[in-house]
Amino acid sequence: MAKIENRLKEMGIQIPETPVPVAEYLPSVMFDGNMVYVSGQDCRKNGKLLYEGKLGAELSIEQGKECARQSILNCLAALKYTIGDFDRVERIVKVLGFVASAPGFGGQPYVINGASELLTEVFGDRGRHARAALGTNELPFGTPVEIEMIVELKKE
Amino acid sequence: MAKIENRLKEMGIQIPETPVPVAEYLPSVMFDGNMVYVSGQDCRKNGKLLYEGKLGAELSIEQGKECARQSILNCLAALKYTIGDFDRVERIVKVLGFVASAPGFGGQPYVINGASELLTEVFGDRGRHARAALGTNELPFGTPVEIEMIVELKKE
Amino acid sequence: MAKIENRLKEMGIQIPETPVPVAEYLPSVMFDGNMVYVSGQDCRKNGKLLYEGKLGAELSIEQGKECARQSILNCLAALKYTIGDFDRVERIVKVLGFVASAPGFGGQPYVINGASELLTEVFGDRGRHARAALGTNELPFGTPVEIEMIVELKKE
Repeated sequence: MAKIENRLKEMGIQIPETPVPVAEYLPSVMFDGNMVYVSGQDCRKNGKLLYEGKLGAELSIEQGKECARQSILNCLAALKYTIGDFDRVERIVKVLGFVASAPGFGGQPYVINGASELLTEVFGDRGRHARAALGTNELPFGTPVEIEMIVELKKE
Repeated sequence: MAKIENRLKEMGIQIPETPVPVAEYLPSVMFDGNMVYVSGQDCRKNGKLLYEGKLGAELSIEQGKECARQSILNCLAALKYTIGDFDRVERIVKVLGFVASAPGFGGQPYVINGASELLTEVFGDRGRHARAALGTNELPFGTPVEIEMIVELKKE
Repeated sequence: MAKIENRLKEMGIQIPETPVPVAEYLPSVMFDGNMVYVSGQDCRKNGKLLYEGKLGAELSIEQGKECARQSILNCLAALKYTIGDFDRVERIVKVLGFVASAPGFGGQPYVINGASELLTEVFGDRGRHARAALGTNELPFGTPVEIEMIVELKKE
């Protein structure tokens, strides 16, 4: 049973605690019976951002990818808040990723790959999603990456 | 009846006129029978932006929150265009908020709280949503805040 | 039959080849039976960006509109990857457009009109959508415009 949890264990991945929103909103919301919208997540690990700074300045693409990977792990934690069991996932539908970018940096897709690759590794074909990767000048609390996600659940 | 309209009246809130899109798009669109996508709204009040400028420079967090509150009121006006009666709302699903940010500003979540808090005050538990708050360097016509929203309606 | 393909032919528009994602994600994803999320598309034509640079600096509004038009053509190509036949479209639900903006540029809605106008020209009333147009400092590979789209299909 619990296939996805087993897969995470094999990969040596522990899903973080559900991130606590800083205001009147929720980590994720189920709608229309079998869809979930996951709130934007930064690259916090054990309460501290993995890195601070911008791509194209302080951070390398590899460090940015690590941030994207941590952000999507936090998205999975926020998803779990609503669905409990990852085996309920029919499909990761959409990932929207923002990368804090110094002037002239255009490698946002390479950075967000850190999230996309993890999703495919964990969920297989169910993890292959639509995506947009965008740059911006400033993100909350100085996180280099912020990611939100839409998920479809199996119909019961 | 008209519970939400009564609640708005109690709070002394008047929903603005439906904002007129500046092009070939609509204030909001219903899809899949019971979902509504609301177009991005700025902080215009009676045809004029509440403030101009950026967070972390000309504007304080409190002024930014006022902008977010006005933007979400404009989202409610745009929602009304499609649904007529707010009592049809099953759930505010998702809020996506952008904050015009001067270099080094990372307090976007505090700003967008101005929108989230209003939604909970008006809709109660139905108003608790998923959310992402992001920074950017420039927004349309110099608005400090722009917000879009996804809403689920009750099934009939 | 094939009404939309005929309309495209009348307009002298050829839908580009499906854009190839640069990573583990898909051009578009169907979900919930009759919804499609289209991945973010830049203004590439025959493998090369139509323009490079920013609005408010190197590029005019007209050039930006051309970029938005090309980006939405690439969205249609990415949509075709999933649905095959454009006559399956019930409604273009939502367009989210980002414009690479030099300091002080606030005309993003005029730029994204290049996409909105094309959708209405091709799909008529079915092409009228909800929308948000936003500015940002940097976009992938230096594209001046990036657009993503949500589409509802006819129920079978």
